Amino acid sequence: MLITLTTDFGVQDGYVGVMKGVMATIAPGVPMIDLTHLIPPQDVRSAAYVLWTALPYFPQESVHLVVVDPGVGTSRRPIAAATPWGLVVGPDNGVFSYVWEAAPPSLVVELANPRYLRDAVSNTFHGRDIFSPAAAYLARGVPLESLGPQVKDALRLPPPLLEVEKRRLRGEVLYVDHFGNCITSIGLLVWDGDYLQFDPVFGEDGAHLMLPAGKAQVRVGGRILRGIQRTYGLVEKGEPLALVGSEGLLEIAVAQGNGAKQLGLHIGDAVEVIW
Amino acid sequence: MLITLTTDFGVQDGYVGVMKGVMATIAPGVPMIDLTHLIPPQDVRSAAYVLWTALPYFPQESVHLVVVDPGVGTSRRPIAAATPWGLVVGPDNGVFSYVWEAAPPSLVVELANPRYLRDAVSNTFHGRDIFSPAAAYLARGVPLESLGPQVKDALRLPPPLLEVEKRRLRGEVLYVDHFGNCITSIGLLVWDGDYLQFDPVFGEDGAHLMLPAGKAQVRVGGRILRGIQRTYGLVEKGEPLALVGSEGLLEIAVAQGNGAKQLGLHIGDAVEVIW
Amino acid sequence: MLITLTTDFGVQDGYVGVMKGVMATIAPGVPMIDLTHLIPPQDVRSAAYVLWTALPYFPQESVHLVVVDPGVGTSRRPIAAATPWGLVVGPDNGVFSYVWEAAPPSLVVELANPRYLRDAVSNTFHGRDIFSPAAAYLARGVPLESLGPQVKDALRLPPPLLEVEKRRLRGEVLYVDHFGNCITSIGLLVWDGDYLQFDPVFGEDGAHLMLPAGKAQVRVGGRILRGIQRTYGLVEKGEPLALVGSEGLLEIAVAQGNGAKQLGLHIGDAVEVIW
Repeated sequence: MLITLTTDFGVQDGYVGVMKGVMATIAPGVPMIDLTHLIPPQDVRSAAYVLWTALPYFPQESVHLVVVDPGVGTSRRPIAAATPWGLVVGPDNGVFSYVWEAAPPSLVVELANPRYLRDAVSNTFHGRDIFSPAAAYLARGVPLESLGPQVKDALRLPPPLLEVEKRRLRGEVLYVDHFGNCITSIGLLVWDGDYLQFDPVFGEDGAHLMLPAGKAQVRVGGRILRGIQRTYGLVEKGEPLALVGSEGLLEIAVAQGNGAKQLGLHIGDAVEVIW
Repeated sequence: MLITLTTDFGVQDGYVGVMKGVMATIAPGVPMIDLTHLIPPQDVRSAAYVLWTALPYFPQESVHLVVVDPGVGTSRRPIAAATPWGLVVGPDNGVFSYVWEAAPPSLVVELANPRYLRDAVSNTFHGRDIFSPAAAYLARGVPLESLGPQVKDALRLPPPLLEVEKRRLRGEVLYVDHFGNCITSIGLLVWDGDYLQFDPVFGEDGAHLMLPAGKAQVRVGGRILRGIQRTYGLVEKGEPLALVGSEGLLEIAVAQGNGAKQLGLHIGDAVEVIW
Repeated sequence: MLITLTTDFGVQDGYVGVMKGVMATIAPGVPMIDLTHLIPPQDVRSAAYVLWTALPYFPQESVHLVVVDPGVGTSRRPIAAATPWGLVVGPDNGVFSYVWEAAPPSLVVELANPRYLRDAVSNTFHGRDIFSPAAAYLARGVPLESLGPQVKDALRLPPPLLEVEKRRLRGEVLYVDHFGNCITSIGLLVWDGDYLQFDPVFGEDGAHLMLPAGKAQVRVGGRILRGIQRTYGLVEKGEPLALVGSEGLLEIAVAQGNGAKQLGLHIGDAVEVIW
């Protein structure tokens, strides 16, 4: 068993360390791996995206602890769930929505059993007092059912925008990464010769399209990019390009540069592929 | 045994990695947990605060390594100490003051035994050459007494400002966190119905006051905040509020915003509670 | 066995976490230590410097994974090598040059054996699909030879500038750290009484000079600094100074300040020592 951590706590304060102390006390020796602590403050959607990209690469015997929690101390419930990608622990605010689209939970419970919480629960730091103890006890083998009653109405975010027409796909910028690469909801795309095979991300088995990569036009931020490239290194330094990112999603980037800054793109901006 | 690390080295360079390499060589397999490496450069007081908040949550069989060390290479001594919150290792510059107020050391020693230092000690990187080896040998079970002679006059910082009158508490901003929340020296405060029970932080068993949370006025940065709230989510987004933080200290914040920036607050600024 | 990680991925996204997930799946329980993920984007030279400073401090039974890779998806080869400082894994772009100057590789191989790659290799995230699996299999004990064919023409960067005359050394700023300290190529320097013994860094056994520390003039950024100091604390706060850094290289700094900003210095700037 291992535990991953995803928060918006930053790495400046001792908050993450405190959570690790709580977990190391309950489950000595359990490996703890940081996914990121730099989710933009209270940005549940970015956290949902990061979890969706990362969890499939971990062992199934993992516990994924998430604390991006604008509603801490209000009536939002703390939950945990069993999924094909491992156990997840965090607030009931939709942060697991994208994971659950791809890997639906077999059981969701409310973290209500006081035996698996800290003795004194603060109003402001449930990461320390509720979520970390729950993650550590799960990592020690406590059954999910023991943590509290089943939840049947856990909150789900609306799925990312993705409209499919005959020769036109319409989506949005889902996430902007450290390099300034803009990852969009247009995917999944898989190379097949000079074509890209398209299947709607998160969707039912639905539209299967074959998209001619070289002829496609990508419209974003008032620009038209011609063609979808195989990798960054194929255009000149400083040139914008569209490519298929490492998760199979269409990505807008600038070779050896910052795509979001140079093209003025933000999360939620519209993206179209036409051919 | 585990080792925690607290430094002002940042996470950009290889300095922290080098210390972990030294420790992994001396004590293979010992878990190493970062508290933070973003203490503001040479800010001994912020480090003292972070240690005070974090150490109680770790197993007692921990070694806490601290390298915030403006005097590296001068005559300030390198020390280690046994406390009820585990072993601590770092420079003798007051960085353990707040920990020692709450968890007085039973023994402080100078790191003088060359057997437990690196063969060549540089003038500029005692984190690598003195503190990391000491922490790793302690984690391996070397007795504290073996590391060097007892120190009886270790440096202590003055405690945080906290004046108590009948219907008035006066303190200061102790720490500003990643969210911009301003944590003050006014505490400890514990909810008791609509009242807050007050006991001076770090102090002797002294004044016990009952403070009417709803009626109290908090004066800070030229503003008056009315009432002390239970959590962030109870006021509108963008509104300033006073609440009791996760450590039981009065905190000044802005709901889903940056309190320090929006209210112009800094470490050391005066805060008053009047009722 | 342990694995270290050095990348330019930043700590904001889930990319580093994904690589750790891949490695934790292949080699459960192997300790993973971050050197840094804040190498400036695609800055192969800064990465080469950080590796050179850090690797000697790790156990020889380590695997050092490096992903600073402007050429991802092009024809640059992925490689791994055995060195006296442990195994190294990364792109064939010169990032190991400084390590190899000091600790020449006994064998370099191309990561070509599909058995030790992920099933589907993307064009954009070789850190996840090629380098992490290789590092994890090496940590599990798979022999280096099994990973692919030998490489005899791995790319090497030119060594850092270092000109030696009778009473004059000429070098360049190699690296600027988190504190703003400017580390130069002038070294190695070892204290010997009031003198500094000089041996060319990375060089053959060559010039051995004795340099009078107090009388030497250091010329950098249009300034003349008089003398080379033993440590930061020996000049007033805010004063610039030259000293010997923790790696034995001449360093330009400002006491309790940011040398690079205050003196306007950048990587590649010329530095001279004259006596």
